[in-house]
Amino acid sequence: MQLQRLAIASDQLLPPRLKLTQEQHHYLCRVLRLAAGDRFIAMDGQGHWWLAELETETTQAQLLEELTAQNELPIPVLLLVAMPKGNGMDEIVRQATELGVAGIVPVVSDRTLLQPSPQKLDRWRRIVQEAAEQSERQIIPELFSPLAWTEALSRWHQTNADCYLCEARGSYPPLLQVLSRTDSHSLYPHSPYQSNSVDSSAPIRPIVIATGPEGGWTEPEVKAAIAAGYSPVSLGKRVLRAITAPLAALALVAAALEADITDS
Amino acid sequence: MQLQRLAIASDQLLPPRLKLTQEQHHYLCRVLRLAAGDRFIAMDGQGHWWLAELETETTQAQLLEELTAQNELPIPVLLLVAMPKGNGMDEIVRQATELGVAGIVPVVSDRTLLQPSPQKLDRWRRIVQEAAEQSERQIIPELFSPLAWTEALSRWHQTNADCYLCEARGSYPPLLQVLSRTDSHSLYPHSPYQSNSVDSSAPIRPIVIATGPEGGWTEPEVKAAIAAGYSPVSLGKRVLRAITAPLAALALVAAALEADITDS
Repeated sequence: MQLQRLAIASDQLLPPRLKLTQEQHHYLCRVLRLAAGDRFIAMDGQGHWWLAELETETTQAQLLEELTAQNELPIPVLLLVAMPKGNGMDEIVRQATELGVAGIVPVVSDRTLLQPSPQKLDRWRRIVQEAAEQSERQIIPELFSPLAWTEALSRWHQTNADCYLCEARGSYPPLLQVLSRTDSHSLYPHSPYQSNSVDSSAPIRPIVIATGPEGGWTEPEVKAAIAAGYSPVSLGKRVLRAITAPLAALALVAAALEADITDS
Repeated sequence: MQLQRLAIASDQLLPPRLKLTQEQHHYLCRVLRLAAGDRFIAMDGQGHWWLAELETETTQAQLLEELTAQNELPIPVLLLVAMPKGNGMDEIVRQATELGVAGIVPVVSDRTLLQPSPQKLDRWRRIVQEAAEQSERQIIPELFSPLAWTEALSRWHQTNADCYLCEARGSYPPLLQVLSRTDSHSLYPHSPYQSNSVDSSAPIRPIVIATGPEGGWTEPEVKAAIAAGYSPVSLGKRVLRAITAPLAALALVAAALEADITDS
């Protein structure tokens, strides 16, 4: 189970308690649907993480322990991946987990209409768990149930995430260039790279990366993504297979987040 | 419609004709199901492409025109990869080729002493060729014969290349950060990003990326690499498998070269 993350300001830490703002409490209980006794991760944006638990009687939380090992990316990265033919998805979910993804959404696209069996989904979840352990992650990425492309777009779009559509055809700017030119205030709303002047009550916006099937996204799929606020980007001049593209994209996003190459 | 690609040798070019081997003709007509009058792309593996058309009366082809498409990286990138156990090398050579590598050197390291059979090398070369065609490369990367680590270091070192050693353990700077801080004059000696003031007679220094086996490089191996002028770098906080590490590294190098994120 993946714990939800909450960005907090340092002055909310009153060990053994964590003082929540009304907005944060609303976010945890109404938006994330946590209940008293549920746990989440509080991040102070300075590289410190705590395991926290919602109190029963109050609207506050208890700090259970500081988490020391920290191999997770500073903000969650979600992979929307059109399922390739054959067993390619095995390798995608394994490598995506190694590269730090927070969640994987198998997408049913115009060119891959196959619905995976429940056994396939179980298999992918086992691979994700294994890979998370082997690569020394603190969280186990969530493997979502498959969604049609339009469903995926209505769930993740520009109002709740920074969304990128990887597309081989067309002259789109390189993903790394787009990431490195993104205003770091929007890319790292609560990262250690930020000053305290940033509004700490804003929810963390995940990064969403969408990669297509063999043959690429269809034109209507690209248009629908752009309408949902996805930035179309290129992964380089060479044509990558549907298996390689998500891994190249995730390697770039992870490295960009950890190397702090954004203009500041 | 995307044209099929065929790798040819330079001595098959007899303009305006392309002499096909029996095997190539069989591949085009039986496997790819092209007929007389159909077009395909012939690649000589040296960066030249031609649009070709199967002749009607013969088993040969006509060279219609040379193509100027250019999907290659501005400077050559060489992968020195400690061979993983099992069939992992198949996936490495395939994905490395897609990601734009110019050459792959299988390395015999302290933790992987296995010498691959000549059949294995042939198999890897076939995969490289296939992948170069599918990913629309102009050159076919060279698959070198396996070398011991010390031999590889004596062949590629700081006097003739910009060398990076990927190492999971230890607190080394992220590869992308190191690449983005590299003086762009040394990184792009002949790239389009350079002014003409750079000495154009200087040989192009390739980028060399070395990735280790399962369990990582041994301490003596790391020391030997550093002595040869390799910069030790990290590929992120998570532990990548021996199969994933080279692909993550190559995705970063290719993107850094094409996105031009270096300080200038």
